[in-house]
This record gives sequence, C-alpha cells and structure tokens, in this order.
Amino acid sequence: MKDEGYKSFWKEKREYHTDNCGLFFEIKSILYAQNSKFQRIEVVENEYFGRILFLDGLVQTTERDEYFYHEMLVHPAFVTHPQPQRVLVIGGGDGGVVKEVLRYPVEKVDFVEIDEKVIRVCQKYFPWLKKVLQDKRVELILQDGFEYIQQAQESYDIILVDSSEPVGPSVSLHEKKFYQLLRDNLSQPGIVVAQMGSPFFHQDELFRKFEFLRTIFKKVFFYTSPVPTYPAGEWSYAFLSETIDPTQIIRRPAGGLKYYSPQAHQRAFLLPKPLEKLRQNKS
Amino acid sequence: MKDEGYKSFWKEKREYHTDNCGLFFEIKSILYAQNSKFQRIEVVENEYFGRILFLDGLVQTTERDEYFYHEMLVHPAFVTHPQPQRVLVIGGGDGGVVKEVLRYPVEKVDFVEIDEKVIRVCQKYFPWLKKVLQDKRVELILQDGFEYIQQAQESYDIILVDSSEPVGPSVSLHEKKFYQLLRDNLSQPGIVVAQMGSPFFHQDELFRKFEFLRTIFKKVFFYTSPVPTYPAGEWSYAFLSETIDPTQIIRRPAGGLKYYSPQAHQRAFLLPKPLEKLRQNKS
Repeated sequence: MKDEGYKSFWKEKREYHTDNCGLFFEIKSILYAQNSKFQRIEVVENEYFGRILFLDGLVQTTERDEYFYHEMLVHPAFVTHPQPQRVLVIGGGDGGVVKEVLRYPVEKVDFVEIDEKVIRVCQKYFPWLKKVLQDKRVELILQDGFEYIQQAQESYDIILVDSSEPVGPSVSLHEKKFYQLLRDNLSQPGIVVAQMGSPFFHQDELFRKFEFLRTIFKKVFFYTSPVPTYPAGEWSYAFLSETIDPTQIIRRPAGGLKYYSPQAHQRAFLLPKPLEKLRQNKS
Repeated sequence: MKDEGYKSFWKEKREYHTDNCGLFFEIKSILYAQNSKFQRIEVVENEYFGRILFLDGLVQTTERDEYFYHEMLVHPAFVTHPQPQRVLVIGGGDGGVVKEVLRYPVEKVDFVEIDEKVIRVCQKYFPWLKKVLQDKRVELILQDGFEYIQQAQESYDIILVDSSEPVGPSVSLHEKKFYQLLRDNLSQPGIVVAQMGSPFFHQDELFRKFEFLRTIFKKVFFYTSPVPTYPAGEWSYAFLSETIDPTQIIRRPAGGLKYYSPQAHQRAFLLPKPLEKLRQNKS
C-alpha cells in the first residue's frame, strides 16, 4: 500500500511534497477510496482538519482550511470587476470555488468538471457542494475544461481555473493554448484567475507560465496567499486581464468571509524577493 | 522510539503540528541526537532541505529555507531604526539571526543563548554559526535570557527574541514580565522584535500576547511571513516600540538577501481577516 500513502493498517495518509518530505495526517476513517476513469479519489477524516479530499494523492481541500484557498481564488476578481454577471468555473469539483462565487448577485455560473465521480463523492462528504448544485444560477457541465472552452459559444466576465496539478487529467489546463482560448472567450472587461502552484516547490513552473501568459494578456499579475494544507503552506494564483488592474479595488467584498479582506488582497499582490521576476510587466 | 518521531529503523523524522498531523522528513543520516541539560537536540539530513535542527522535536531551522525566518525576524527592525548600533539577540543558538544582524555596520551584538550544547552542535553542522562567532562584534553569553535581561546594565537599540516554543527552557520568554524587562533595557528610539508562533495553530497565544504587549509598549505591530518548514507554513512576529512605526522604511536593507525586500516588508504588516484583532491600537 506504500504507493497509496497509507501505512500501519490504514492509520495514516500522507502527501509527498518532494520525494522525501511532506505532510502526514493520522486518519479516523477512510470515507471513500476508489479510482474514477480519470484519477484516484480519496476522502479521509482527520481529527484536526476534518474531511480531506485527495486526488491522485494530493490534498485538494479540507473542511477546516478550505476558505484560505477558495476565498483567495475568487474574491480578488469580484472586487475589481465592475459588473460580473456571467462566470465560468473550470475544475474544482469539490464546489468550494462556486460556493464563493454565489455570494455575489451573478446571473449565471457555468461549472465545468471533468470527473462526475468527484462531484458525486464531494456532494456526499462536503455539504457546501450540495447547496451549490441546488442554486438555480449554476449549470453543471461534465466535460473536459479544455474541450469545453474550445467549443464554447459564450463569453464570460470572470473565468476561474481551479485545476489540479499538471499531472493526470489537468495537464492541458497548464498550457499556452488553453489560456489563449480563455482569452478568446472573455468579455471586455474580463478577468481570468487561475491557480499557479506552490511558489516554493514549483517556482520554475511559475516562471514558465508567466512567460507565455504575458504574450497573451496585457495585464498579468501573480499573487500568493497562505493555505495551511498545501505544500509549504503558501499558494500562488495568476490574475489575467486586458484592462483591469487588480490593485484597484472598486467594490465591497461579499459578507461572511473568513480570510479575505481588502488588506489580505493588497498583501497578496506584494511579491517578495524570490518572485520579483513575476512583476516586470506592469504596463 | 515513537516519542522521538522516528519510525521504520530511523529512516524518518517527523514534527507533529497537532496530535494527529504534521510534517515528515525522510532522512539520509542522523548527524546528532542527544539530550542537553535543557532539551533534546537533533540534527538530521534530508535530501531536499539539507541539515535540519530539531529542539524537543520541533524544527528550528534547515539549510534550505532558513532565510525565510531569519531575514523576516531581523530586517524590518533594521530598516526602520535610524541608527542601530547596540543589538541584543536572545535565543537562536543556531546563529541565523545574528548572521543577518552582522550584515549591518553595528557596533556590538550581545548573543545570549541558554544552551551551550546547541552552540557546539550548530557550530559543527551549520557553517554560518562559525563565521558569526568569529566576528569581533559578537559577544556570546551563555545564560538564560530572562536572567540576563533582569541583571543587564546595558541598553540596546534593537532586541531580537528568537525563542523556541513556550515549552521547555523558553517558557519565561513568553510572559509579560520578560517584555517589561526588555522595554526597560531599550534605548530611545528602540525596537524589540520577537517571534510569536503560528498564526494558524497558535492563534489564541497570539491574542493573549497582544493583550499584555499593548499594556507595555506604545507601538505593537504583529506581522507574518511564510516559512516552508514551520507549522502551516507561516509564522508571526511582534514589532514593539515606544516611537517607531514599522511601516515607515527609512533605510535600505543590507545586500545579499534572498526573501526580504521592501515589498516583502510591506506585505508582512498587512494582516488578513483572522488577525484583524491584532491591529486595533495604531495610535
């Protein structure tokens, strides 16, 4: 069972951040552990973090700290866009991103997830997804995100990309062509926000993406914020637009948030020394 | 051996962040593992992080990511103080904090460490400490930090507290009386910076300290920054002064830094929603 990350009679689940270090979670129970057509899906329960969703061995979300990531992926775009009505969410089958979007009076959220099994499992174990799918503004589309955007007839005010890591079913969501398609389906003004990985462990990947993103969008801003259960405890995001500057907050955030605030927003866009190269093109 | 955090024939070392989760490091070798009069000292080698110092089972520093913590503990005070000449460092026997202080043209650094064994072990395994101790500006004082400051005849421009957690030999460095003594030994203008623990796992402890610190110092500013190998990947610090506002940078930072920059500085003092209570007394 070593390759599953369990040891000593299924009492522990671990995520490797490199070949030789990572996080471990002692588990009270394994709620779900099966392969879908696309990936390995596991939901385990830890005393401190509650229910944890793993895809292909990597923590996607936990009951206790989900808001760190979901709020920071969603709210920066919603407080800087003048009137976000039509929203596309690609990935994030756990529903945490859509949950945050629905705090705003949007018209329509197209929620594209490749793996129906992720939806079915999360609906059972993460109560917020059930609510999300009951909301009349949400249309769930079970399709590969890359395929969807290639054929899409719609344009969106905000597109949010909550991909899993560039292994498994998400590979195409990490390439230049995908971002060109996103741009072509963006209203004006419009914003794309996409998760960009760990600024500590995956720094080369951030720089690689920055280089191609700046050939596609006029405004390319990376930002980072803490996520306790992600590798090294910090995550990065790209804010992409033709016209919108993410440092100009023009609307109040939704109520009921736990991490995001205008100060958290401002903080996230100030990049420390290792990421300075990611802020060279503020045109 | 379970209580040591090793398993499967000493191939792994782990730090528990709660009773049931934490970080694991597969280890290439155990370089040192003994008890001193005060605590358990261990130095292990991990492929990715290099040499790692544990005190009483908690990661203190690693070769690969030491600069995240050491730079952020030291440089904010040095770029906001008009003329820092006399410096006191309490704790931090690995020497990382003093290493950063010595980048500035200070007159004198009193380096107070309770545990001589930590000094001897780190001198062997962390090359920067050797350099630190060879610098003529540094006086190493092997004494309990609380006792030292109780009897000190000196006053300091900057005092840096790099305590271990409030268990073991550091307990007295986490109480109100200690900070009163620090204030009494501070020059005017003067700054104290102290590590304050994890803003995620130890939030109650941050609030407890904030309450007593604001009865002692006129300026009490908490700040946070990422540290990949500390619990939840982020750490907090308190900036304490009678007169100095940490958001007013008046000097250039030293050269050669890897994380700290004026943007990293500005970022650190912008607190997100869970820590808003820590910024109520900006008088």
